[in-house]
Amino acid sequence: MPLPAAALADLQRIFGDALSTDAQRCAQYGADDSRRHAQPDAVVFPTCHEQVLALVRACRTWRLPLVARGAGSGTTGAAVPTAGGVVASFERMDRILRISVEDRVAVVEPGVLNGALQATLAPLRMLWAPDPTSAAFCSIGGNIACNAGGPRAVKYGATRDNVLALRAVNGAGEEFRCGSATTKGSTGYDLTHLLIGSEGTLALVTEATLKLTPLASERHTVRATYVDVAAAAAAVARIMAQPVTPCALEFLDGESLRLAHAHGGTAVPLAGAMLLLEVDGEPATLDAALQAVAQAAQGEGLLDLALAATAAQVEALWAARRALSPALRTISQHKINEDVVVPVSRVPALVAATRAIAQRHQLPIVCFGHAGNGNLHVNLLPRDAAERERAVPALDELFDAVIALGGTLSGEHGIGLAKRDFMPRAIDATALALMRALKAQFDPDGILNPGKLLPPP
Amino acid sequence: MPLPAAALADLQRIFGDALSTDAQRCAQYGADDSRRHAQPDAVVFPTCHEQVLALVRACRTWRLPLVARGAGSGTTGAAVPTAGGVVASFERMDRILRISVEDRVAVVEPGVLNGALQATLAPLRMLWAPDPTSAAFCSIGGNIACNAGGPRAVKYGATRDNVLALRAVNGAGEEFRCGSATTKGSTGYDLTHLLIGSEGTLALVTEATLKLTPLASERHTVRATYVDVAAAAAAVARIMAQPVTPCALEFLDGESLRLAHAHGGTAVPLAGAMLLLEVDGEPATLDAALQAVAQAAQGEGLLDLALAATAAQVEALWAARRALSPALRTISQHKINEDVVVPVSRVPALVAATRAIAQRHQLPIVCFGHAGNGNLHVNLLPRDAAERERAVPALDELFDAVIALGGTLSGEHGIGLAKRDFMPRAIDATALALMRALKAQFDPDGILNPGKLLPPP
Repeated sequence: MPLPAAALADLQRIFGDALSTDAQRCAQYGADDSRRHAQPDAVVFPTCHEQVLALVRACRTWRLPLVARGAGSGTTGAAVPTAGGVVASFERMDRILRISVEDRVAVVEPGVLNGALQATLAPLRMLWAPDPTSAAFCSIGGNIACNAGGPRAVKYGATRDNVLALRAVNGAGEEFRCGSATTKGSTGYDLTHLLIGSEGTLALVTEATLKLTPLASERHTVRATYVDVAAAAAAVARIMAQPVTPCALEFLDGESLRLAHAHGGTAVPLAGAMLLLEVDGEPATLDAALQAVAQAAQGEGLLDLALAATAAQVEALWAARRALSPALRTISQHKINEDVVVPVSRVPALVAATRAIAQRHQLPIVCFGHAGNGNLHVNLLPRDAAERERAVPALDELFDAVIALGGTLSGEHGIGLAKRDFMPRAIDATALALMRALKAQFDPDGILNPGKLLPPP
Repeated sequence: MPLPAAALADLQRIFGDALSTDAQRCAQYGADDSRRHAQPDAVVFPTCHEQVLALVRACRTWRLPLVARGAGSGTTGAAVPTAGGVVASFERMDRILRISVEDRVAVVEPGVLNGALQATLAPLRMLWAPDPTSAAFCSIGGNIACNAGGPRAVKYGATRDNVLALRAVNGAGEEFRCGSATTKGSTGYDLTHLLIGSEGTLALVTEATLKLTPLASERHTVRATYVDVAAAAAAVARIMAQPVTPCALEFLDGESLRLAHAHGGTAVPLAGAMLLLEVDGEPATLDAALQAVAQAAQGEGLLDLALAATAAQVEALWAARRALSPALRTISQHKINEDVVVPVSRVPALVAATRAIAQRHQLPIVCFGHAGNGNLHVNLLPRDAAERERAVPALDELFDAVIALGGTLSGEHGIGLAKRDFMPRAIDATALALMRALKAQFDPDGILNPGKLLPPP
């Protein structure tokens, strides 16, 4: 549906050439990595806060849906403009504004790519903790929108743990700042954390002050192979009960291992389950840290514990891990990649529930992910129409199992469209009503990313 | 003002004997450590969630102000019932409901004392990070209300970084849960962090799921003495720019050292400034960690670097640090203890600004605190009526200086009454309006802790 001519004229006044209504161009900005697609009526490319402010005000005047977009690597449909309207791609707001090593902060525009920031920080011996598998091409604004995590979160936290302050424009077209560039703050209600994970439904972020972490000097990587999932999961619980927290504690079930192997990931064994463990620290401390974690990894069902001795061996292990997501597409073009999370002690029960669901519905399901946070990527892999049909009740049962185990729907992907209708299972009616009221307060006309995160009333 | 008889009857139906309108009893529950006092009309002692729910509903029916109270150790007047009404003391909701070492969580009622939880956790080799100086007698509910910190926050975070989920009752008398017992979660808007630091103005917390941290096996404590504040502050910045984060990085200025010394704290030197440094870790790693931090502590202006060799020496240093707050009372019964926070690199500028203010207004001002977070306790110490008068513009200038340095009003005490009227300096008009709207949404009749945190419109 084309925009009203007067609305388009308003947007053109703000954006000039940095606006497109070309169908092909718009189509490029209508999809995300969930393989959902919807056509926006226009796409704009703001370059500064003031343009974003003017954009929101214009969209409010014309009651146009407005969808903020990072790099389109989300997996829940959160950036897909299902109501049409305007997509605001932040790709041109990609400046790193300030880095202070002694203050451990970086101030960035939302379009900065995660990987670009890490590359800038590395020579300063600093990092920003969130490291999703998509780090090379995902944006920090997108990380903030969905509260992204990654392997490192087990030691260093996810996005919500690593953002200190934000500048933003809410759906009423009002600009504000929240938080402060300090690692402590107790000055009023916490609007910063409220915006993180809100998927562009409350406000558009135009600047973020990030909390940095010193980069450890060295890292050791260990591959621990187990007879079965239960033995690996028990090791995860032992590792998390001792004082040395690894900087990665990744889990791959037997199906994942077979798949990775088949796609060239011969660095991983063919076994019941594997843990990919990393510890980081200073040279003098690292061996002891490795020792502590390796000892906790040992126990009933351990088949093999192998230190990756060279950089090439380390990279081969991670390459196998990273190859999993694309490999799943070769099995199923319609893979459903969930990121459920349960308390660490319930990981074995979650995997068992997943196996039972796979069996009950005769559906391939593969589990891997961030075991140290209890955050597993459960991939349902329907190969044909019949399996796609059976995936519907299977997914339903998966979420029920997760909630029954004291977990929740999403650890790091967010809700978007994919899990929106399951929200009432995880969030009680009062909390959901409070969330709806928050949405109405920040975005009184419902123009910001309509239809996402909250289920229809 | 006595409660309406029918309102009192309602409360008595809920609380029976666990209610008092006795003036003396009520008086005990009307003060906090800011030495403010106001008389409530009644004090009640809930023992369970259901009683709290009934309490809020009754207070809403009768439009009674309702002030949640932990242990009364707050320093901002947040727990002082300035509008009268009912004080709900959570001291009888003091059960630790569940501890899981492998999940790294504890589930507690809000009346559990911080120190009691730590004592229960220590044999399990775990801790809960927040460790305010009042840990022995402050409650976890109070820690949540004001987003409490303490020395350990520099490495392990403050309260907001260490709470995973809450159960609560908002001002409309609606009960809800938010968050999940997992270290990652991206399922809807973050109500948990919103409640933390809200000082009982949005909801009453009845259960908290806390994130635990493994207790390091050993700790080393170092005293670093400097010629002046600038030299110590420069050392703080150097320490925070290297990868080994100490588990305490406390700063005492020369005035603090003289005061501590005069009150029996002979473990501290008489010098321009001192840092109290701690590193923790495993035996095999600790020496290297100590080495890294000690090296960063060295530089221009260092007078002496001394390892506390025995447990007694460590305790003597901390005792001197802890003695400071009470010692200040001997100088000034009306001490104003602020907890401003600035970026670490601005600590020297903050201390310089403080010295200039002290000189300009001829007022004793003492600075000490959590330098690794840039969180300093600036104590204004008026000794007579004239100095009390001069403390007013001095405080005003202090907050201006803090904001100009990119800091904020409070790092760990909260706002309460003490800093309420300064909020517009730290929070812009739109963010303040959003906070007011949040208050109206969670507490439509304004019964929860009226007059706190937000300035009058």
